[in-house]
Amino acid sequence: MDARVTSSLTSSASAATGGAFDLAAWSGRHLDRVEQALSRWVPLDAPAGLGEAMRYAVLDGGKRLRPLLVLAAGEAVGGQEEPALRAACAVELIHAYSLVHDDMPCMDNDVLRRGKPTVHVQFGEAQALLAGDALQALAFELLAPDGDQVPAHVQATLCRLLARAAGSSGMAGGQAIDLASVGLSLTEDQLRQMHRLKTGALLQGSVMMGAACGQAAATALAALERYGAALGLAFQVVDDILDVTADSATLGKTAGKDAASDKPTYVSLLGLSRARAHADELLHEAHAALAASGLPDTRALAALADMVVNRSH
Amino acid sequence: MDARVTSSLTSSASAATGGAFDLAAWSGRHLDRVEQALSRWVPLDAPAGLGEAMRYAVLDGGKRLRPLLVLAAGEAVGGQEEPALRAACAVELIHAYSLVHDDMPCMDNDVLRRGKPTVHVQFGEAQALLAGDALQALAFELLAPDGDQVPAHVQATLCRLLARAAGSSGMAGGQAIDLASVGLSLTEDQLRQMHRLKTGALLQGSVMMGAACGQAAATALAALERYGAALGLAFQVVDDILDVTADSATLGKTAGKDAASDKPTYVSLLGLSRARAHADELLHEAHAALAASGLPDTRALAALADMVVNRSH
Repeated sequence: MDARVTSSLTSSASAATGGAFDLAAWSGRHLDRVEQALSRWVPLDAPAGLGEAMRYAVLDGGKRLRPLLVLAAGEAVGGQEEPALRAACAVELIHAYSLVHDDMPCMDNDVLRRGKPTVHVQFGEAQALLAGDALQALAFELLAPDGDQVPAHVQATLCRLLARAAGSSGMAGGQAIDLASVGLSLTEDQLRQMHRLKTGALLQGSVMMGAACGQAAATALAALERYGAALGLAFQVVDDILDVTADSATLGKTAGKDAASDKPTYVSLLGLSRARAHADELLHEAHAALAASGLPDTRALAALADMVVNRSH
Repeated sequence: MDARVTSSLTSSASAATGGAFDLAAWSGRHLDRVEQALSRWVPLDAPAGLGEAMRYAVLDGGKRLRPLLVLAAGEAVGGQEEPALRAACAVELIHAYSLVHDDMPCMDNDVLRRGKPTVHVQFGEAQALLAGDALQALAFELLAPDGDQVPAHVQATLCRLLARAAGSSGMAGGQAIDLASVGLSLTEDQLRQMHRLKTGALLQGSVMMGAACGQAAATALAALERYGAALGLAFQVVDDILDVTADSATLGKTAGKDAASDKPTYVSLLGLSRARAHADELLHEAHAALAASGLPDTRALAALADMVVNRSH
């Protein structure tokens, strides 16, 4: 089991939802399924080394937060397992491709990711570009399988949610704002808008894709949307905090990078103490949304929110 | 109307299918719809200049061969208009994103495309990378709209076909082979495999996406698959021929590029005369497949195949 999710969150999660919950055991079980599925679905036999680069970018690394959110939301709504597992892997492929492209010299020019050389360092820039492109296509391929194991209306909804979360009104749009905002002084509203798109859209999308694998009332869906929005923003606030408080070895990537490249962050805007308080507020919002969802068991979602805010890397 | 498709193909197309057909008029009508739809769907308001780069990459340029193939196949099977128009635009977005990324310095490093500076020259490499990524996401977003204007099973099928055509077993895989084959001496089989993926998969995918917008018998679908495969390969053979016989001004991109960069081509492998004969054989195969399809009116598809083989740029 992964040490990344073994922190003692049991009490906090159970306090929010009224039942003991072992996030470490739950995550371990689901992470195994996700890793096996990713290894099965990311093709080793793609031509001319492309499969090798794709697998390097995806396998054996990462917190897998997005897949866990998909699976937790899927369980919360009593969703089907096959579409939820496909959605979990699809969002991870989108996340992985965005990291590959983001690390390239024309973007962040980073050489270290998850403690390993970045994809373009390992395989060259051209192959990294193609591997990222192919991972995005594969994400949608996973969501639209042949046969009747995933109902057509679920396939369509999952593709819609993922495309919107990944595209210009989601992740890619947020990255464009990020690119344009280096060296600028943003207001908190502008910073929030950037992160709502850049990281928030895919995190919230993960929750909603999980929810799309089952039947949930409109009020439950609206509550999960609020949960996803709060969690998505909390993730980024904590990321900004860790960028200045953790070291590179702990993070598995270059620490202090944002400050060094003069990017606006929650810490540069609010200071460390108010940033920390803001993360706690957002965690409270996430828990409140779950409590209002009317769903019978949201303990995994609650524990994941705790983990996001209390993580050390 | 576009002068690119006004060559006198009427007699050839009509000879294959037994009725007069005016490709120029047909194409003009459909190109107007495609241009308007692309202009409506590629967002001007994407953040931080991203929309501007996306629109620059897509609008006001290109032969729109793939959209026309979608629409021609859609009509041949009596398909619905709304999904066919969405599919037509989606394949063009995938094509456009592939050109943006392919032109980047780490790939072909090309500065001229459709007679204009390439996207990274105009907007910078980082924005070009993001614009390409966002265009791919937008392609899937177009295929999976809200509401019931496109049935869910059609949305799912279109996403499946496009993802497979664009990914590692399609276009991206072919580009990886292309990348790895510079300076190598390929056999005709290896060259065919590269092009079957690199350009053939998306051209064939265009035909099959159009076919997915209606009801077609299995024999008709198989025939359209053969048509798409022959046309896809013919397109590349002619591309290789034009790379050595046309000038940059006519092509709207740098001529002689493949030969100069020591890429294997049909011309370098077969010589100009046998390459030309091969293109004609493939055109014959495409017509034969249409004749065997059992579909009542395949004149637009026939005329598009003629145009592909007889084009001057």
